[in-house]
Amino acid sequence: MIEAVIWKNDHLDLLDQTLLPEQTIYLVLTTSEQSFEAIRNLRVRGAPAIGITAAYGLFLGMNHSMASTREEFLAELDQMIEYLSSARPTAVNLFWALDEMKKSVTAMGSTDVDTLKSVLLVRAKAIHKDDRQRCQDIGDHGKSLVPNSAGILTHCNAGALATGGIGTALGVIYKAHSENKDIMVYADETRPILQGARLTAWELNQAGVPVELICDSMSGTLMQQKKIDLVIVGADRIAADGSVANKIGTYNVAVLAAHHNIPFYVAAPLSTFDMNLDSGDSIPIEIRDSDEIRNFAGKAIIALPEIDCWNPAFDVTPPELITGIITEKGVIKPPYKQNIRLKMESAN
Amino acid sequence: MIEAVIWKNDHLDLLDQTLLPEQTIYLVLTTSEQSFEAIRNLRVRGAPAIGITAAYGLFLGMNHSMASTREEFLAELDQMIEYLSSARPTAVNLFWALDEMKKSVTAMGSTDVDTLKSVLLVRAKAIHKDDRQRCQDIGDHGKSLVPNSAGILTHCNAGALATGGIGTALGVIYKAHSENKDIMVYADETRPILQGARLTAWELNQAGVPVELICDSMSGTLMQQKKIDLVIVGADRIAADGSVANKIGTYNVAVLAAHHNIPFYVAAPLSTFDMNLDSGDSIPIEIRDSDEIRNFAGKAIIALPEIDCWNPAFDVTPPELITGIITEKGVIKPPYKQNIRLKMESAN
Repeated sequence: MIEAVIWKNDHLDLLDQTLLPEQTIYLVLTTSEQSFEAIRNLRVRGAPAIGITAAYGLFLGMNHSMASTREEFLAELDQMIEYLSSARPTAVNLFWALDEMKKSVTAMGSTDVDTLKSVLLVRAKAIHKDDRQRCQDIGDHGKSLVPNSAGILTHCNAGALATGGIGTALGVIYKAHSENKDIMVYADETRPILQGARLTAWELNQAGVPVELICDSMSGTLMQQKKIDLVIVGADRIAADGSVANKIGTYNVAVLAAHHNIPFYVAAPLSTFDMNLDSGDSIPIEIRDSDEIRNFAGKAIIALPEIDCWNPAFDVTPPELITGIITEKGVIKPPYKQNIRLKMESAN
Repeated sequence: MIEAVIWKNDHLDLLDQTLLPEQTIYLVLTTSEQSFEAIRNLRVRGAPAIGITAAYGLFLGMNHSMASTREEFLAELDQMIEYLSSARPTAVNLFWALDEMKKSVTAMGSTDVDTLKSVLLVRAKAIHKDDRQRCQDIGDHGKSLVPNSAGILTHCNAGALATGGIGTALGVIYKAHSENKDIMVYADETRPILQGARLTAWELNQAGVPVELICDSMSGTLMQQKKIDLVIVGADRIAADGSVANKIGTYNVAVLAAHHNIPFYVAAPLSTFDMNLDSGDSIPIEIRDSDEIRNFAGKAIIALPEIDCWNPAFDVTPPELITGIITEKGVIKPPYKQNIRLKMESAN
């Protein structure tokens, strides 16, 4: 299976997802600035993959540190964490991964700067490896929710390209497919960045999973025609009440699924939950540049510069539209407030 | 206001809408084949404008006729109507306009072929002129449904570019705007052909109506944020029970509007009603080429040729999701079956 992020001894090989599906090119990242740029400009995307890239990016940055004392090193670390945190605002895994990285240093009593640098690399590799396992576990917990001969709708890309493993939403699909469930996946193209067309359809096709690409506007008609048995999507941040921030368009799909009485599942690791947020209202939603809508990938002008656009990168789906949240520790069902808290407590 | 179709003595000047918004180029049509090609390849689109173009196209074709008798002429006319009818399958105005053209000839007792040719041109011009008036009347009947300071969502293009006048859905919007109602229009970009981005946003902006462009996947979030007070769309065909076939994505918007208790209006002339169809199930839905999805705006490859796509050009919105149908003879409200029949009878 394709890998979005590969650690190579002293640098990161990062698949430039903005060039897919036409070109499969890995960038060589050796600095935190390159990592920041790759996250900001969507060369890497997907909440878990952003977290992994930020973790390695933090190591790459701190590995160049000239600090001679622990104090100097920690001060630089805080600055660099703040810098990398500002790459994108919505996916909480970014902050979670950077926080885990910091904890690994503060927990390490050593005053030797080289030791502190080493622990950062060890922790980044562990975040990466753990994510691979979490994807497997999410897939195993979710696969029984997929009936035989199911039509499955997914939005955006929550696959191998979005994680350190086989994906979250697509992890469930890969696991169901490997059990010969004869599934058919419908991929929303996911405007404006078209992750569904460029990434999900490409990734599933490469992996031999039957997939059909549709425009985002066609999902309701597919449901009306009874071709969809369940929806599975990923998540960028989940509030304590079960509100899910995910790629813009997810909310439309959730409302349509509810209207057609189709189960709507979210698949995400526990690192996606932000227990500091009581509800979805407080999740910060990134508003991106109008040119992403007006001018696809710099190639096709569909609206002139004088046309105003509104381009939120994410939306928030309220818990009442969600059938279940598939995590590496099992499926969380309503009532979410209570069951999310229990799951998070038992995982700590 | 921009005109999509202009008759010029002996030919049709037709705005090539596939080149908008970057280029405003009128094609010179002098044959039925050119008219067929323009309809088939979406150089002209929008149910009323398709009907008008087909009517002129039929005249242009028959004007070249070498028939010397009425019988020969009528036989050729039938062939050419069949030919032009096959340009696109869903918009009923195409068949309606060609049928009106035929009636004008059969009602004309003359055996003089030149006279029969003349009556075709007279009828085509009348279809065009009547459509201009119908747009005005639809606008006048609909404008009172638009509250002051309303946020209005529209999908695809049902404006001047889709008709012989100021449009159907946009006709209502232009009339409301001319009464200083301080409206804001949100235009769904309308994948795959992007009529909302390329045509509606452009047309409204040219006319000085405030408009903001969004991707189709963002409509639910706008509603969630209470920015939409009503939805108005056009129609390609309406069955006797009030089921509305319109541009793919209309059904998604209708379900989302119902979920948020937002009024959902359809604006269309009575020529859009197909009383031969009891329900929406029998409306033929055109399935178009996968490349319209895979190759964004003909310029950017977003999926490789091996990726299967499903590309229905229209969807069907059931009557229970429709608040009212705005026609040139007033607004039709539920129960649709009964009220559509009454409206059609009183109009005949």
